[in-house]
Amino acid sequence: MITEKIRKQPANETECKASLNSIADALYVIGGKWKLRIIVALKEGNKRFNELQRTIEGISARVLSAELKELELNGFIRRKIDTGTPVVVEYEATKYCNTLEDVLSSLSEWGAMHKETVRKSMRKG
Amino acid sequence: MITEKIRKQPANETECKASLNSIADALYVIGGKWKLRIIVALKEGNKRFNELQRTIEGISARVLSAELKELELNGFIRRKIDTGTPVVVEYEATKYCNTLEDVLSSLSEWGAMHKETVRKSMRKG
Repeated sequence: MITEKIRKQPANETECKASLNSIADALYVIGGKWKLRIIVALKEGNKRFNELQRTIEGISARVLSAELKELELNGFIRRKIDTGTPVVVEYEATKYCNTLEDVLSSLSEWGAMHKETVRKSMRKG
Repeated sequence: MITEKIRKQPANETECKASLNSIADALYVIGGKWKLRIIVALKEGNKRFNELQRTIEGISARVLSAELKELELNGFIRRKIDTGTPVVVEYEATKYCNTLEDVLSSLSEWGAMHKETVRKSMRKG
């Protein structure tokens, strides 16, 4: 356990910088207000544009459309078009989204912990 | 190990929604392009405004200033003012930043993995 903790601390300035750069790289691709939320909503099984917009509170159609395009470019989602009548467009999460499991679960745990902390401090204040 | 994996998968729709909400809560506070990068830079030992601006490539003084204020409001950083001559303002990460350890290490690992994936696919292409 202790060894684990020590391993996670970057050992020197070079490793520190590398770690900072990796975080910047990650945030460049999945940072921002919406991308991870869209990915989670897709993994939950939402497939249609309107379903996604309903699930993700506060996102506009214009922004959702732009975000979906970027996510597709980066290999996180696939856009499937059924050219019958009516034309049906569906989005799905690719396998690459599974690489985000640790990121998503650590964010989810932190978010729950933070909400509880804020709630407690408001009760006190 | 398998139990662990199963535990992490939300079991039903209610848990799914709770997990989505926690992620949204987390992104509300630490999402966006800069906040985590500022926290990491502070933890690396940068203390002065200009040091931070140099370390975090691409951030403007106006944005850094606004982000620092928000981070202070949310309890992630402390602003120390030494009223001698000249007045010295220093920022430091609070203990609460340590709660982000798992988030930061998973993002850092993912960022490094993603960069390598992109590099490999470009070599192929």
